[in-house]
Amino acid sequence: MDFIEIAKSAKQASLEIAGINVEIKNNALKAIAEAFEENKNAIFEANNQDLEQAKILVDEGKHAKSTFNRLKLDENKMRDMIQGVKDISQLEDPIGKILLKRELDENLILTKVSCPIGVLGIIFEARPDVISQISSLAIKSSNAVILKGGKESANTNRKIMEIMNNALQTVPQFPKNVIQQVFTHEDIAQMLKCDEYINLIIPRGGNKLVKYIKENTNIPVLGHASGICHIYTDKSADIDEAIKIIVDAKTQYPSACNAVETLLIHKDFSKKEELLAALQLEDIKLITEPESWDTEYGDKILSVKIVNSLEEAITHINKYGSGHTDCIITQDEKNAQIFMNNVDSAGVYWNASTRFADGFRYGFGAEVGISTNKTHARGPVGLEGLTIYKYRLTGKGHIVDDYAKGIKQFHHKDL
Amino acid sequence: MDFIEIAKSAKQASLEIAGINVEIKNNALKAIAEAFEENKNAIFEANNQDLEQAKILVDEGKHAKSTFNRLKLDENKMRDMIQGVKDISQLEDPIGKILLKRELDENLILTKVSCPIGVLGIIFEARPDVISQISSLAIKSSNAVILKGGKESANTNRKIMEIMNNALQTVPQFPKNVIQQVFTHEDIAQMLKCDEYINLIIPRGGNKLVKYIKENTNIPVLGHASGICHIYTDKSADIDEAIKIIVDAKTQYPSACNAVETLLIHKDFSKKEELLAALQLEDIKLITEPESWDTEYGDKILSVKIVNSLEEAITHINKYGSGHTDCIITQDEKNAQIFMNNVDSAGVYWNASTRFADGFRYGFGAEVGISTNKTHARGPVGLEGLTIYKYRLTGKGHIVDDYAKGIKQFHHKDL
Repeated sequence: MDFIEIAKSAKQASLEIAGINVEIKNNALKAIAEAFEENKNAIFEANNQDLEQAKILVDEGKHAKSTFNRLKLDENKMRDMIQGVKDISQLEDPIGKILLKRELDENLILTKVSCPIGVLGIIFEARPDVISQISSLAIKSSNAVILKGGKESANTNRKIMEIMNNALQTVPQFPKNVIQQVFTHEDIAQMLKCDEYINLIIPRGGNKLVKYIKENTNIPVLGHASGICHIYTDKSADIDEAIKIIVDAKTQYPSACNAVETLLIHKDFSKKEELLAALQLEDIKLITEPESWDTEYGDKILSVKIVNSLEEAITHINKYGSGHTDCIITQDEKNAQIFMNNVDSAGVYWNASTRFADGFRYGFGAEVGISTNKTHARGPVGLEGLTIYKYRLTGKGHIVDDYAKGIKQFHHKDL
Repeated sequence: MDFIEIAKSAKQASLEIAGINVEIKNNALKAIAEAFEENKNAIFEANNQDLEQAKILVDEGKHAKSTFNRLKLDENKMRDMIQGVKDISQLEDPIGKILLKRELDENLILTKVSCPIGVLGIIFEARPDVISQISSLAIKSSNAVILKGGKESANTNRKIMEIMNNALQTVPQFPKNVIQQVFTHEDIAQMLKCDEYINLIIPRGGNKLVKYIKENTNIPVLGHASGICHIYTDKSADIDEAIKIIVDAKTQYPSACNAVETLLIHKDFSKKEELLAALQLEDIKLITEPESWDTEYGDKILSVKIVNSLEEAITHINKYGSGHTDCIITQDEKNAQIFMNNVDSAGVYWNASTRFADGFRYGFGAEVGISTNKTHARGPVGLEGLTIYKYRLTGKGHIVDDYAKGIKQFHHKDL
């Protein structure tokens, strides 16, 4: 089937799923979780095929070992994947929420109500559990979705999608074509051009992939290209807090997008040397003259800069940061407030590790991804980020001319 | 000054205005309103220059007479323009609103707070009052703005901008370069490419302009290209209500985007003929075989189609509509609910004129424009549409490793 036909059918599915009630959506999610449970071995088998091919490429040096690890679906990841689907079925329905209810005039009632966005296009790299997670989020938020995974995990992805769609067919009243998959580079090119049918693109992958997508489509893109997170250690920072937070932010999971990449230190912080020594003791490599101030190391490496003032720190972050998550360590509340007000990032932290930037840690129950956008959704995005709203207006023959002529007046009373 | 320099200075201004308090913003708006009052005559003079040039083009048939009327700033429009600025100064500050406050764990507090988007790029056509309205909305929402108006109103725009910026210079603590203007086609081309500094583009103008912009930028665009609004008259519609609503929706202001363009009538509506005759009596030209079902007439012309069912009406609207505003006229509540649930438009109305789709009528106090987007802001957009949010997290040395190892647990308590 060519891409446009898939996109059209997804659009049709999005209109159908928009109106179904939450019980059907939850039944669909439960059916998927059960089907995964029953068909575990088939998924492992498909994953093994992918792993065999990946192993050859790793041995030939064409793939990093990390790709192999991300690709591998073991019992633990399978359990998490199944639990993830079940968890989403337990979340509150994000659709049909009343966001505003206002009487514009007698018997003229305006209601702003949350509704799905429509069709999501998802482009992701090696992790095959993304396909089940995003499909489940799409179902729960009444969106249709077209997924394009990495070719490294094609066998696993195909098997997971087949199992999900077989399960969905057994769910009464669940529409067809809500979740679909495409496989080729040509499909990506077509997806990016398909603004007639696709309403939002979510890339999940490395810097290069996300940058390429953002530069090559007019469709709104939700995500982040890079994660250049900063920690600024203020003059009045507590040395123990500083060591603890910086070590966590750099070493707890160095390849995460919310790991710190640059440490700024106030020139008058008296325990500078002690701090730097402590970081080196934790095997963190410190670079005081980096090639560039927006390097994302993804490793236990940290750019370090001494700054003359809080203002210089803020300016540095707004210039070189990626608007992801930035932190000040200080005992001075006023400085903390200035920092949090003036740093233009999705997350502005005071005395807490940047690694907290995450939908689960924020208590959203699910995470679509982390966005550095300045519109729609910013920071860790939960189910709410997959919704928009519509305005319902009910009247009894109300016309604008009566208000234009002053025969009637609006009274705008919130209900 | 070349465009990139203007955009850079706007970015800098956006960072500075993000942190100022609402009193300064309101002082700025009051200063602008007073300056307009004092310099009315200078604005009329500049407008006269534009009008003289426009008159020649109208006489030569190169401009429609409507362009001339839109361009003309008379005492009434001036009064409205000044009142508009004052009204915006009275609105609640959209910045710094606490949207969520959650204790993730003891002493680890997450706050989601509204903040400005950054730099807005506005591209608009002949109406010179747009420049004052959008500048005021930008100031109130702490955004910087770069405006590009139509060349027909260049003298008026230049004078209005000069007066506003002179007024802003007198306001203590108000940053420089918050509102700026550019003039050439080359500036538009550069603006559309300038995703490094510009966060949101808002086009205010005709279908062609908006379409061109949407197709030629990766920056998020807020607006609507066309307004193909429908009214579906159901089998059980009240004839008097139907006539009243359709006449209002078509004739009260035919060139508005929320005017109705297509009337769908259920084949079993017994008073079809009476309805159509009544519309013709109001000088509405009915077209039963239009060249295409997505024609925006902008005039007292209406496409008419007889449909076999509510479902056919919904399918027609979702296929040919522009997702703006669509209405069902019916006495049957169940059909009304099906219509409002399944029509995928920003506004779904029951027994009320489509002309109500407007920020002022919705009680927003101001209108940025009407959006048919499926992300960020949809329908009539008030000040809230010029905001996004950031997450502030304050801790006392909290690190993720403690939670990963199970030493601590999140308790996610909303405050």
